[in-house]
Amino acid sequence: MRLLFIGDVVGSPGRNMVQEYLPKLKQKFQPQLTILNGENAASGKGITEDIYKRFLEWGAQAITMGNHTWDKKEIFEFIDDADYMIRPANFPEGTPGKGLLFFKYNQTEIAIINLQGRTFLPPIDDPFTKADQLIEEAKKRTNLIFVDFHAEATSEKQALAWYLDGRVTAVVGTHTHTQTADERILPKGTAYITDVGMTGSYDGILGTSKDPVIKKFLTSLPVRFEVEKQGRNQLNAVIIDLDPNSATSKKIQRILINDDHPFFG
Amino acid sequence: MRLLFIGDVVGSPGRNMVQEYLPKLKQKFQPQLTILNGENAASGKGITEDIYKRFLEWGAQAITMGNHTWDKKEIFEFIDDADYMIRPANFPEGTPGKGLLFFKYNQTEIAIINLQGRTFLPPIDDPFTKADQLIEEAKKRTNLIFVDFHAEATSEKQALAWYLDGRVTAVVGTHTHTQTADERILPKGTAYITDVGMTGSYDGILGTSKDPVIKKFLTSLPVRFEVEKQGRNQLNAVIIDLDPNSATSKKIQRILINDDHPFFG
Amino acid sequence: MRLLFIGDVVGSPGRNMVQEYLPKLKQKFQPQLTILNGENAASGKGITEDIYKRFLEWGAQAITMGNHTWDKKEIFEFIDDADYMIRPANFPEGTPGKGLLFFKYNQTEIAIINLQGRTFLPPIDDPFTKADQLIEEAKKRTNLIFVDFHAEATSEKQALAWYLDGRVTAVVGTHTHTQTADERILPKGTAYITDVGMTGSYDGILGTSKDPVIKKFLTSLPVRFEVEKQGRNQLNAVIIDLDPNSATSKKIQRILINDDHPFFG
Amino acid sequence: MRLLFIGDVVGSPGRNMVQEYLPKLKQKFQPQLTILNGENAASGKGITEDIYKRFLEWGAQAITMGNHTWDKKEIFEFIDDADYMIRPANFPEGTPGKGLLFFKYNQTEIAIINLQGRTFLPPIDDPFTKADQLIEEAKKRTNLIFVDFHAEATSEKQALAWYLDGRVTAVVGTHTHTQTADERILPKGTAYITDVGMTGSYDGILGTSKDPVIKKFLTSLPVRFEVEKQGRNQLNAVIIDLDPNSATSKKIQRILINDDHPFFG
Ligand SMILES: [Fe+2]
Ligand SMILES: [Fe+2]
Ligand SMILES: [Fe+2]
Ligand SMILES: [Fe+2]
Ligand SMILES: [Fe+2]
Ligand SMILES: [Fe+2]
Ligand SMILES: [Fe+2]
Ligand SMILES: [Fe+2]
Repeated sequence: MRLLFIGDVVGSPGRNMVQEYLPKLKQKFQPQLTILNGENAASGKGITEDIYKRFLEWGAQAITMGNHTWDKKEIFEFIDDADYMIRPANFPEGTPGKGLLFFKYNQTEIAIINLQGRTFLPPIDDPFTKADQLIEEAKKRTNLIFVDFHAEATSEKQALAWYLDGRVTAVVGTHTHTQTADERILPKGTAYITDVGMTGSYDGILGTSKDPVIKKFLTSLPVRFEVEKQGRNQLNAVIIDLDPNSATSKKIQRILINDDHPFFG
Repeated sequence: MRLLFIGDVVGSPGRNMVQEYLPKLKQKFQPQLTILNGENAASGKGITEDIYKRFLEWGAQAITMGNHTWDKKEIFEFIDDADYMIRPANFPEGTPGKGLLFFKYNQTEIAIINLQGRTFLPPIDDPFTKADQLIEEAKKRTNLIFVDFHAEATSEKQALAWYLDGRVTAVVGTHTHTQTADERILPKGTAYITDVGMTGSYDGILGTSKDPVIKKFLTSLPVRFEVEKQGRNQLNAVIIDLDPNSATSKKIQRILINDDHPFFG
Repeated sequence: MRLLFIGDVVGSPGRNMVQEYLPKLKQKFQPQLTILNGENAASGKGITEDIYKRFLEWGAQAITMGNHTWDKKEIFEFIDDADYMIRPANFPEGTPGKGLLFFKYNQTEIAIINLQGRTFLPPIDDPFTKADQLIEEAKKRTNLIFVDFHAEATSEKQALAWYLDGRVTAVVGTHTHTQTADERILPKGTAYITDVGMTGSYDGILGTSKDPVIKKFLTSLPVRFEVEKQGRNQLNAVIIDLDPNSATSKKIQRILINDDHPFFG
Repeated sequence: MRLLFIGDVVGSPGRNMVQEYLPKLKQKFQPQLTILNGENAASGKGITEDIYKRFLEWGAQAITMGNHTWDKKEIFEFIDDADYMIRPANFPEGTPGKGLLFFKYNQTEIAIINLQGRTFLPPIDDPFTKADQLIEEAKKRTNLIFVDFHAEATSEKQALAWYLDGRVTAVVGTHTHTQTADERILPKGTAYITDVGMTGSYDGILGTSKDPVIKKFLTSLPVRFEVEKQGRNQLNAVIIDLDPNSATSKKIQRILINDDHPFFG
């Protein structure tokens, strides 16, 4: 079984890249399941119901989120009905939405979990303990478990991956908007990458226009961050090959589509 | 002109990798200048004079540092005489050591600068302003300028790189101990990568033994972090091809040496 | 019923102040219950069994802790048997020790709770939710509930106090080592102060020798913090008058003993 | 000479308290100089030119600011002409406004300095080094120097005060919106208090409505913070008696005006 995961989609440039390349990636790699992180899909901050639905139309089967989950107010109106969307599961008890969903392809079921880190991010419930709970819950139905760990610190991401090695099929990191080159299969069979990267502008800073970000670092004055819509775009993703019988991963492969890494169909 | 930069060397496994592979990398790639980040070279924390000298013997011409510069007390006794070592230049006025050095190869001189970020790191002087000052100083002697930006946040690293694009020859990031896959030549000719990665254990967490790190995240209790000395090792680096005439970079290439990416001489 | 709470006792100067003034305070104010925060009692970092026992001998009936709970390794050997010591209750499940104890005076029982904040402090379990749970547990035995909230941010401390107003008898803050002047009875009867302050050196910085602290801010270089043992000392505390029938507080009064506020017996 | 300093004025309740009580305080205490911190004066965030002018009309001679300086956009249009307003002097070179002003009363001149801390606050220039520079500059005209240090951490505030003891006449802290009870004259004659506190709602949290703040801590969901305009108000201040000849302080006295501490004229 093959899975495609697309890193944080930022604004309209990111959505356009998904619309254009998701069909091509599907044709080339033939994944049975496509997941994408949509926390920045609407103007860089949050997601709307309309965008969520378009992602499904374009071929994603599950949308994960992160610290920007609540940035668009309308999220509160549709998240509880958005069957194919998950937000970090370790948000406090009582938070709208859910952090675990199941996807079924023929006879094979896979659990998809979203968690958020706490290092350099707001204090929420412990993602390690929450992972233990969700894995126990998921294993009642399937041993195939995919985790999007939305976190900043490389230490926290690698710690969770090693902690879950052999208990889940894959752990991929998101949030830093920068793809890492450390994709690997851990010793007990869990596929891992510290960060999948982002999908959106290739000439911005994390998908945002450069000048305000640089001005912020130079002056500490308030600036208005905006999605970079000029210039070139990129798509960052990973392809993971799972073995449903052993619930382990056989291969993880990075995908970069940008001017320096053109796509060959 | 070709430059080799080796990412944060962690403890004896990291030093052993340098000793073993630096000659092989030199033979294969023929760099005129080798720089390595040595802030974790002595048992994961700081550097000793003995290790500093061995790095030079093994073929490095310059050693950069970072937030762990002062972890070994003896640093205060030799840093002012360590001509080939730099620590972040934006440490406060009056700090021992220096943040800029010049390396000369035949008629070609290159300035090497070390800076440290402030996002998710202790407050020090502004690295952007300090970069402006050092570039002005360096340009009195040479237009070839290499920057090791030791920083945590991907936004801060990318902001500095875009801010310096066209003014320096290369900006490489260090500190997260995780190589990123975003190496590129920016539009005005500056080579860039968000993080070069680390050199040391391949089965630890950032070079450290896994169990204490995981225990820390699970329990918040005090633990003793130790360099992981068992198991497999890795070396992370980049090769940058510079054009001394234009002072721009032509190519940046990631190097990964580990069990999943064996070295071919 | 009257309760005396003494703020963070720092090192031997703090212990000496407790030994000298606790009898005098008891004679003057006649409290039925004395609690003190002991997280810095042993050389500024943690507590030993010996010191714990001496606090009880000198007249304290309960010892609360905080982020320095584990600084002395021997804590792990005696905390589970230290009936009169509590550490923050919102440390993760499975942490040694406990966060709630009951004290009985004649027929009156009072629950004592220790919690720790998360703003500007390491991520642990949510203190607000944990407070709800412990209050429910405590109320099976008594409505008289005292909370030591060990936290940095004034907003978090005041938020918890208002959240618990009318449900607990008193919330006192600790950790900043600086007494606040905002002691009051909240509208539903909960006594509150943002920080009780510290007990130890009056001429140091939070009980620590000044020079290393100033050097740290000036240079960012490593320094060795030590308890200030020269010069004048201080004791910071509050007296709270409770009404056992209504489980509310009637009065909260700050105590400062130092050269500028001499004690009158 | 006598000086009155009023802590962070928050929104219309804070402004109303200033308008009502500043004349009464002046009548009672007869200060020659009144300074107030106005960083939260306009709906809790920043200040407008209109409010700035009203503060001067009501009797303040100098307005200090802090991390909220830039929250109202119009600040950029009037700050360079606002002769009696200062913002933290250690904002980066080139920041609009200034961080030092001189006030003259008869033949006596006093320098007023505003600085901002870096612990738990955004990274800016070093306040200790900047203090040294400004003191040198001020001493060309006068030895009487007043410092408003806008900072979060008690350690940083006390460190600066001890660092400046004997070199400036007074250091008062602002920003935590909670008055501390540690006002004192340091050994070399500098008046000090860790935080003067705030002026505005007495039934909110730091001047803000309670419910959104509590909801934020409970749920981590986005909330809209608003100035608390219902209920009771408070004013927090200090009175400092200076000796112009020795440039030292003789006395520092806290002022609290609220339902628990009614004002007696
Ligand atoms: Fe994102
Ligand atoms: Fe994110
Ligand atoms: Fe490092
Ligand atoms: Fe580092
Ligand atoms: Fe303490
Ligand atoms: Fe503490
Ligand atoms: Fe304020
Ligand atoms: Fe502030």
